Amino acid sequence: MMASSSLSSSSTTQTQNRSPELRKDAVNNRWVIFSPARAKRPSDFKSKSPQNSDPNSNSSCPFCIGNEHECAPEIFRVPTDRNSDWKIRVIQNLYPALSRDIESRIDADPNGEISGLGNSGRVVPGFGVHDVVIEAPVHSVHLSDLDPTEVGEVLLAYKKRIEQIKGNDLIKYIQVFKNHGASAGASMSHSHSQILALPVIPPTISARIYTMKEYFDRTGKCSLCEDQPKDLQINVTTHFISVVPYAATFPFEIWIIPRDHSSHFHELDSEKAVDLGGILKLMLRKIAVQLNNPPFNFMIQTSPLEVTDSQLPYSHWFLQIVPQITGVAGFEIGTGCYINPVFPEDAAKVLREVNVQM
Amino acid sequence: MMASSSLSSSSTTQTQNRSPELRKDAVNNRWVIFSPARAKRPSDFKSKSPQNSDPNSNSSCPFCIGNEHECAPEIFRVPTDRNSDWKIRVIQNLYPALSRDIESRIDADPNGEISGLGNSGRVVPGFGVHDVVIEAPVHSVHLSDLDPTEVGEVLLAYKKRIEQIKGNDLIKYIQVFKNHGASAGASMSHSHSQILALPVIPPTISARIYTMKEYFDRTGKCSLCEDQPKDLQINVTTHFISVVPYAATFPFEIWIIPRDHSSHFHELDSEKAVDLGGILKLMLRKIAVQLNNPPFNFMIQTSPLEVTDSQLPYSHWFLQIVPQITGVAGFEIGTGCYINPVFPEDAAKVLREVNVQM
Repeated sequence: MMASSSLSSSSTTQTQNRSPELRKDAVNNRWVIFSPARAKRPSDFKSKSPQNSDPNSNSSCPFCIGNEHECAPEIFRVPTDRNSDWKIRVIQNLYPALSRDIESRIDADPNGEISGLGNSGRVVPGFGVHDVVIEAPVHSVHLSDLDPTEVGEVLLAYKKRIEQIKGNDLIKYIQVFKNHGASAGASMSHSHSQILALPVIPPTISARIYTMKEYFDRTGKCSLCEDQPKDLQINVTTHFISVVPYAATFPFEIWIIPRDHSSHFHELDSEKAVDLGGILKLMLRKIAVQLNNPPFNFMIQTSPLEVTDSQLPYSHWFLQIVPQITGVAGFEIGTGCYINPVFPEDAAKVLREVNVQM
Repeated sequence: MMASSSLSSSSTTQTQNRSPELRKDAVNNRWVIFSPARAKRPSDFKSKSPQNSDPNSNSSCPFCIGNEHECAPEIFRVPTDRNSDWKIRVIQNLYPALSRDIESRIDADPNGEISGLGNSGRVVPGFGVHDVVIEAPVHSVHLSDLDPTEVGEVLLAYKKRIEQIKGNDLIKYIQVFKNHGASAGASMSHSHSQILALPVIPPTISARIYTMKEYFDRTGKCSLCEDQPKDLQINVTTHFISVVPYAATFPFEIWIIPRDHSSHFHELDSEKAVDLGGILKLMLRKIAVQLNNPPFNFMIQTSPLEVTDSQLPYSHWFLQIVPQITGVAGFEIGTGCYINPVFPEDAAKVLREVNVQM
């Protein structure tokens, strides 16, 4: 790859001098245990199972150009002309987690709330929308290989699909996410992301909205509009800043945050999409170089759809990137509390100081 | 292994006829997506990476009998005589997530609340206790190889250690957990479990206590004292019942629940410990047979220590077993909402109907 500097020894020293801490995240309101005894050096986290593409499997991959007939139905493509070659395709998921076909079985009251609950309010039909965004026509091309404008086009495809789905009153939240690498949950190696529209607001999102509102009520400020400490910053562009959050749940977790207040990802305009495409590409390149091309996930953390008129003063969307380098074990499953062996200041330094070719 | 029946075809058929559902857990108050389209048969979940022991690595394993000097200090052993051979050892963790050495740096008010918070109440020193329970002296012996009385002795060792730790007012919650298999987070293959005592109440536990109290206030009943539906039951003993919970977060997740109301695991007496040892062994054998010896975690879900006099009418401890057969990906990390491809009724049938040698 294209590293021009490697993990610095100074951050190593810094880590070893630290005592464990518990930090609470001001956005998610959860405690994270920072435990330097469990890691000697940031380089201990280099992935042992780097994700290499398999450039020759075009013939058997349904996401590759020419194999469109093997996929579930297409919703739209970019460019939109169905007779031209495509750069991006948005299609239905062949194995959807939720079904778009059972809407008729749902009773909804005039406010769009699901009211057909059986079993003491504990079950609802699995209505929802689950789509796939194929990010490039060629099997060997990954998202971080695209140029910033092309990454921006993928982001604008998310936006377009969200705007199509959000007209359905039964949909409460739309999660955009990407799994890269088999151990990060990707069942297909061809570069793609997913959009899953849900009839409920998921727990992480409702907890975040509650916590950010509480912070706003107490301080008069949006917690993500506040200045980010210098030692947690990675890069800054015209419209975005990338940081390692103060109480990062996972080692080398990155948040890309709009610098101007914005509640919903789908407010993104074309200019900001290119800017976000550039910093997203940069972050993916940086973790690839510093962590040996690890599997990763990214998630767009936006606001529930019912938040109308978009500009909730306390809710601020961001893009969360999580390299998959430590697993979840019994302690985390049992408690919901995570142990992070890398202090965020050390992770931010490692990611700030590396130069990568763009 | 010792299977006398294998995954039944009837449960396969049942799965394929189902539509997706969202179910809410009455104990944890979270939505889980049940999505049969993502799995064809329960046997799809047989582990591809079974956990085999490495019986010959005695010489290099610090947990093996004879290598005690390679471990962090011993806290106690069973039997207690330090000059006799041991069956169980409780030792300090050599790489503790929290430190027992920084208590002096913590300011606590007379109620034992940590008050020395810096950074706007967002950080506390990482004080805590992190111990290891070595469950057997011989490398190749796993917990499920022990007889019920011996498993009961391991459970009583947990209890004894909890009772030692809970005298410290700074400790709010004690999590007992076991990681079996490298992909379930076990860094040592020698059979062991861990005890991590925390200065905060973790989010999963506080959410559970809140939800169970709300249920009690509404119905006058403890949600785990309620009769469990027949089709979710696996086995029943004198003092315990094992079930797949109605809204299981993970495929083939099992809860072992005391049949009589009990808030804290450490109320366990010697008779119940043997009974629990038997049903725990049985459940571990059943998942080993039906799921091809998968990696797994178990967690003792108990009540916070500050709950005095033990008999909170709404809080009921249980032991949670999670076979590690599906990974966590972007959707789960992003939303806290899980997709479970196996309906609990189908998982319970598969686990109920298999016979294993004990």
